[in-house]
Amino acid sequence: MTSINPNKYKLSEQTAKLTANALIPHVQKDSPETREFLHKVVELLVDYVNIQNDRSEKILDFQHPEDMKKLLNITVEDDPVSLQQLIIDCANTLKYQVKTGHPHFFNQLSCGLDVVSMAGEWLTATANTNMFTYEIAPVFILMENIVLAKMREYIGWKCGDSILAPGGSISNLYAFLAARHKMFPDYKEHGSKAIPGELVMFTSDQSHYSVKSCASVGGLGTDNCVMIPSDDHGKMIVSELERAIIQRKSIGQIPFFVCATAGTTVLGAFDPLNEIADICEKYGCWFHVDAAWGGGLLLAPKYRHPRLDGVERADSITWNPHKLMGALLQCSTIHFKEDGLLISCNQMSAEYLFMTDKLYDISYDTGDKVIQCGRHNDIFKLWLQWRAKGTLGFEKLMDHLMDLTQYQVKRIKEQSDKFYLIMQPECVNVSFWYIPKRLRGAPHDANLRAECGKLCPIIKSRMMESGTLMVGYQPDDRRPNFFRSIISSAAVTEADVDFMLNEIDRLGQDL
Amino acid sequence: MTSINPNKYKLSEQTAKLTANALIPHVQKDSPETREFLHKVVELLVDYVNIQNDRSEKILDFQHPEDMKKLLNITVEDDPVSLQQLIIDCANTLKYQVKTGHPHFFNQLSCGLDVVSMAGEWLTATANTNMFTYEIAPVFILMENIVLAKMREYIGWKCGDSILAPGGSISNLYAFLAARHKMFPDYKEHGSKAIPGELVMFTSDQSHYSVKSCASVGGLGTDNCVMIPSDDHGKMIVSELERAIIQRKSIGQIPFFVCATAGTTVLGAFDPLNEIADICEKYGCWFHVDAAWGGGLLLAPKYRHPRLDGVERADSITWNPHKLMGALLQCSTIHFKEDGLLISCNQMSAEYLFMTDKLYDISYDTGDKVIQCGRHNDIFKLWLQWRAKGTLGFEKLMDHLMDLTQYQVKRIKEQSDKFYLIMQPECVNVSFWYIPKRLRGAPHDANLRAECGKLCPIIKSRMMESGTLMVGYQPDDRRPNFFRSIISSAAVTEADVDFMLNEIDRLGQDL
Repeated sequence: MTSINPNKYKLSEQTAKLTANALIPHVQKDSPETREFLHKVVELLVDYVNIQNDRSEKILDFQHPEDMKKLLNITVEDDPVSLQQLIIDCANTLKYQVKTGHPHFFNQLSCGLDVVSMAGEWLTATANTNMFTYEIAPVFILMENIVLAKMREYIGWKCGDSILAPGGSISNLYAFLAARHKMFPDYKEHGSKAIPGELVMFTSDQSHYSVKSCASVGGLGTDNCVMIPSDDHGKMIVSELERAIIQRKSIGQIPFFVCATAGTTVLGAFDPLNEIADICEKYGCWFHVDAAWGGGLLLAPKYRHPRLDGVERADSITWNPHKLMGALLQCSTIHFKEDGLLISCNQMSAEYLFMTDKLYDISYDTGDKVIQCGRHNDIFKLWLQWRAKGTLGFEKLMDHLMDLTQYQVKRIKEQSDKFYLIMQPECVNVSFWYIPKRLRGAPHDANLRAECGKLCPIIKSRMMESGTLMVGYQPDDRRPNFFRSIISSAAVTEADVDFMLNEIDRLGQDL
Repeated sequence: MTSINPNKYKLSEQTAKLTANALIPHVQKDSPETREFLHKVVELLVDYVNIQNDRSEKILDFQHPEDMKKLLNITVEDDPVSLQQLIIDCANTLKYQVKTGHPHFFNQLSCGLDVVSMAGEWLTATANTNMFTYEIAPVFILMENIVLAKMREYIGWKCGDSILAPGGSISNLYAFLAARHKMFPDYKEHGSKAIPGELVMFTSDQSHYSVKSCASVGGLGTDNCVMIPSDDHGKMIVSELERAIIQRKSIGQIPFFVCATAGTTVLGAFDPLNEIADICEKYGCWFHVDAAWGGGLLLAPKYRHPRLDGVERADSITWNPHKLMGALLQCSTIHFKEDGLLISCNQMSAEYLFMTDKLYDISYDTGDKVIQCGRHNDIFKLWLQWRAKGTLGFEKLMDHLMDLTQYQVKRIKEQSDKFYLIMQPECVNVSFWYIPKRLRGAPHDANLRAECGKLCPIIKSRMMESGTLMVGYQPDDRRPNFFRSIISSAAVTEADVDFMLNEIDRLGQDL
């Protein structure tokens, strides 16, 4: 059990039994009940932030779905509940939520909780505006301009255009659409009949599945997204890329889009960007870099080279500040080297929404550049965080996360009887097996790996049931299940890394 | 000027000069500085909520982009700013933000600020999780299940499947993709070559431009999105739909998707759903209803009929609680009558992310159903709001908004010398012209309308410069610029409606 106590947060007797009808805007003057209600919610939230950072607290109190439904009263009914019940609802929700900011949560690419970014997101909620025009989001639109230009500067571009999207998958879709539009401007109006053959795209077999999804969504068919083999370290084999392009051209298809990944999901591998850029130039393909995961390292000179060398040659780049940089979910950016492409690709000329006879310089309006129309304000949390850390603060964070990863590698190697490091990581993903007692000293052959692989789901279940640790696992094309830990939370210390390994050992003792 | 005073929110002298490095998680134990910082941000936010509801406050303090940049220091630099500066940054941002919850803001489909939904979004930020699996969002995933099933119940379905998407445009894209997949399951793999002709889709000329965008994104080309004419009231002319389907079939194209709009963006018109459903049945087309705007009226028996009669015959329905229902931005839902379609359409079999050998019933995982991979948690703000209001509370809200709209219509008719009502509204959109003094009594001909149209941008500029009122305007195919006011905020009263009309008159006095 975590120490969130849903009965701790008592409203005054008078307020407790009221309903939301007693809050602003249903009461017209300055409202003490609204203040009391909101401050009580925040008391809970601030407690949660503190409890989450207490290492003696559990990460989660696991319940199976059917049990959870019985445990919590979470139906929605005809009648309102009281303000006090709403507070209890909030507390119960957090009591059973997985503490993704706990220092022992190594489970996702996005771990941790940046409290400044969180404060930014609270303000975003309160401002409750949409990002389509300067008219209704003036300060936020300017912040987008400033932050996105700064990011392009770190990519190495002096110009270009960018937009925030709801996640890396949609960012990749923007890149795909812009590439198709750039090469075949008639596609927008006339579709696939606009061109004399089938479009075909290329990405590595380690890339995020959203790249393949573009081929499905965009009507090419996943057949026309060629998955290029990767090497043992998860990097695209560039000679295979060239071979595939030549082969597809030979059957009359039109190669138009190559996605390189800078930081793969599982292994954290960086594709060789310069070599891929050369191929793209040679065959006239759009060069997209999916740096959703690895993009943060653009801010860290120590790691930028050699991993991201050549990134500036890309036509488009996905970069998610909600991953390595720790901005709150969601915060994903897509950048284009060529200005004007976003709008010419996505504009549907909805003059009834985006009028041109306005009071101000409408070049600041973004509504016509996007496939979303209304967009959530994803900039303020990042802008405020950037103010709070400074670019140098992000650099320090990257260095710190990478140092901790090297510490983990060192500790794994020092305990090579218990752990097997699959490869030297390039990012903060560490891939490894736990070797149970009965198999220690056995040769590292397929048999051992298969046995170690079988333990992953068992140990993971035990992690969740004990609530002490969260580390992910998965198989890949070459290997059975293996653990992949992620150090992307600023909360993690060397002691936490030791805890991770010790706890896996404790949970796997008897297997 | 609004009365947000950036210098009011003083941290203690000791905390003020610290940077974010002094906050959790950089300090490990319970942190008074973190509490102080967060409570100070909330003091500001709660003040803003109160000030926003003060009718004597301005809605905005308009500045041109270049002036705003000079006025505010919003660059991001190498070095961090102090905690006190972050608080000032937050206050400045709100000082110059447009108060979308002000009772005199009638500008967008989404107006108002539901403070319970806002509290929900604060919690969402603090929980900072992703919605792909039950593993990391157990309570939120169950809430999605419960609320989406409840919404399907109000649509009139006993089964089906649904998902939350980042805005109505992406919801419509989900519908388009599912329709194509249902009719041509091979399209996902083989693309347009899977079928023996061109796909063609149909929507009204009043529909949201995102429907046309689907044709572009999906590779059909916007040529293959046929815009069906609408009548004087903005409703699709169903005989024209049938004529277009027959015509397109006659040239060998394959009609597959018809979008009806329940609540158009400008006029708030409802297409005749039953008649369109008949046509879809007759020609074997998928029947999608874009009720992003009008969906809220499903909760109000008084208005559901006849506007939404036939909605239960749809194959898919977009419904945005962030519009009429007042949930915080963004909260958009897409519903499918057939269960299983979302996953078979969108699944890319990323076993490395969505493993099947888990501790719990993985049917609760949603990651494989969506084109986004990670999704923002958009459910909690709606769930908490639903708990707070009860379904009956939403019904009352709909009734109240519609009553106020009728009040506005009445007041416009009573002042027919000054205002011209373009049509009797079906939703909370009211379309009208302001008639300046010099033209009062003139015949309502094209000449008068053209003159009135020219005043819209001028009066709108004056609204923004005076900061007292926000009402949108736009032209359409039949008319020059006209005002379109929206009453979707629970803050609005009859007196506010009177204020709107009086203030337009005041601002237009001399024109």
